[in-house]
Amino acid sequence: MPETSRRPIAIEGVLADYGRLIDTALDRYLPAEDAPPADVYRAMRYSVFAGGKRLRPILVIAGAEVAGAPSEAVLPAACAVELIHTYSLIHDDLPAMDNSALRRGRPACHVVFGDAMAVLAGDALHAYAFELMARNADVPPCTPARVLRAIHALTVGIGSGGMVGGQVLDLQAVRGVPGRKSAAGGSQGARDEDAVREIHRLKTGALIRASLRIGGVLGGAGEDDLAVLDRYGEHLGVAFQILDDLLDVVGESGKLGKGTGADAEQSKVTFPSVFGLERSRRLAADATHDAVRALTPLGPRGAHLEELAAYLLERDR
Amino acid sequence: MPETSRRPIAIEGVLADYGRLIDTALDRYLPAEDAPPADVYRAMRYSVFAGGKRLRPILVIAGAEVAGAPSEAVLPAACAVELIHTYSLIHDDLPAMDNSALRRGRPACHVVFGDAMAVLAGDALHAYAFELMARNADVPPCTPARVLRAIHALTVGIGSGGMVGGQVLDLQAVRGVPGRKSAAGGSQGARDEDAVREIHRLKTGALIRASLRIGGVLGGAGEDDLAVLDRYGEHLGVAFQILDDLLDVVGESGKLGKGTGADAEQSKVTFPSVFGLERSRRLAADATHDAVRALTPLGPRGAHLEELAAYLLERDR
Repeated sequence: MPETSRRPIAIEGVLADYGRLIDTALDRYLPAEDAPPADVYRAMRYSVFAGGKRLRPILVIAGAEVAGAPSEAVLPAACAVELIHTYSLIHDDLPAMDNSALRRGRPACHVVFGDAMAVLAGDALHAYAFELMARNADVPPCTPARVLRAIHALTVGIGSGGMVGGQVLDLQAVRGVPGRKSAAGGSQGARDEDAVREIHRLKTGALIRASLRIGGVLGGAGEDDLAVLDRYGEHLGVAFQILDDLLDVVGESGKLGKGTGADAEQSKVTFPSVFGLERSRRLAADATHDAVRALTPLGPRGAHLEELAAYLLERDR
Repeated sequence: MPETSRRPIAIEGVLADYGRLIDTALDRYLPAEDAPPADVYRAMRYSVFAGGKRLRPILVIAGAEVAGAPSEAVLPAACAVELIHTYSLIHDDLPAMDNSALRRGRPACHVVFGDAMAVLAGDALHAYAFELMARNADVPPCTPARVLRAIHALTVGIGSGGMVGGQVLDLQAVRGVPGRKSAAGGSQGARDEDAVREIHRLKTGALIRASLRIGGVLGGAGEDDLAVLDRYGEHLGVAFQILDDLLDVVGESGKLGKGTGADAEQSKVTFPSVFGLERSRRLAADATHDAVRALTPLGPRGAHLEELAAYLLERDR
């Protein structure tokens, strides 16, 4: 089947190139492990270089590409969103939160460095992300006004109306806020379906949308293109989260690097637990299709984003 | 003694006016408690409106005043530093960190809302602070370039080279990193003295310095004035921290709102524990004197900052 296999191979090379570019930049931007206070830098680097896929920084770069800007023009901001993502994982894994001992196949940050250092490493990454955002103003063709707009997009994506808000809803759902767990029957089921969509639209989707918008804004995209990126990001976020949930249920443990079934153990509200496996797969395919369709106005400028969406869907196969 | 009592009364009125201005702005900027996800907004507001003195936002306003800018011109940024300060207190009080059940005379955030919600409320305040910083660009006479410079100053002040770095050092000191606790004798004592200075220069001083610089930058201060603000902030930060440590030892419990002696209970590295009470008092007076002297180049434009330093010293009397 050479027809279907060609596309993933092409985008895989692009993703690998971007991944290396981002890893090199992260290594350059983050302070060395022996700089004082060394412990927190070790904890920060441990989690940043734990083998993430760099999806969010890749989306920043791809968003800038749509506006014709080179990846180098948004590299600080691309790294910034990865630091934000990493901080959120470190805090999420804390005993007070999801209490996950494993992350990406390795002991979680707090297991290695202690709970207090994990809180502080997350806080330091959070702050440092905004330092990198500000530093993006030094890279042409960026302007201070564009960077400020990108910073605003980031804060909206990660605050109480975005990523953190989604974690709050997730927490409430796990801890048995009325309307959860008894997923049987009509209106109760509908409420659960709405809940899982809303949790993930904020918890995962908001930073994915913000990443694309940050890239577009910094690259100088017009309002029409930004609207396209927003719509694409909305659907891609849904597809990504469903596929992530599915991998937790059916994937090999090594593939995601956390114990398979970890979500179920914690009574997490996931797409498979609410919609079932088959319907979740269909929803992921639909969302991918919607994401790709949203790109139509971009013409060939949307090629990488289209291939990326298709590639994520293939992960599940 | 009418001569000495007149000054504190004048600055007390100014501080009260600024405090009201800041409280009103914070109330306007923070989302309402019934907005979803309501729990996190309740936790955020609980800690923001727990009766803080608003010292840091007042320093932002005072920094802008030096450049001739009105307080309204820096109000979003002034509130932003208070949100940062609040987030740091919430995370500091967590069981995994200082494990403080009381803050400003009331149960700490995590005691009321749970550890997970306290982590998230801190994270949300952290992110929201940068949203407010970005929004300061909408207020004349600010420009995007000034706001970006102010954001950079904030990130440097609160990251691993500033506030969070100080918390890391503090944590290591409490948990018995070699060179602590046995404060007897020559070189060991000198190391302890250096350690307590460095911890507090970062943990408390960095945000105080950043607040003054943010106000100066946003207000349009020139490089000479910014250098004056930096020097003043350096000394004021030292004075403030010593006085805070002293109040913990000798103040009435109600005055600071945390249990008196809490630092000693946690084997915290404090100025009184390392330098003794009398020498700490002298160091605070010296630092206040140095702060005031640093203001000389400003002439009458430094009047409020001078009175503020003198007022903080009087707190201890």
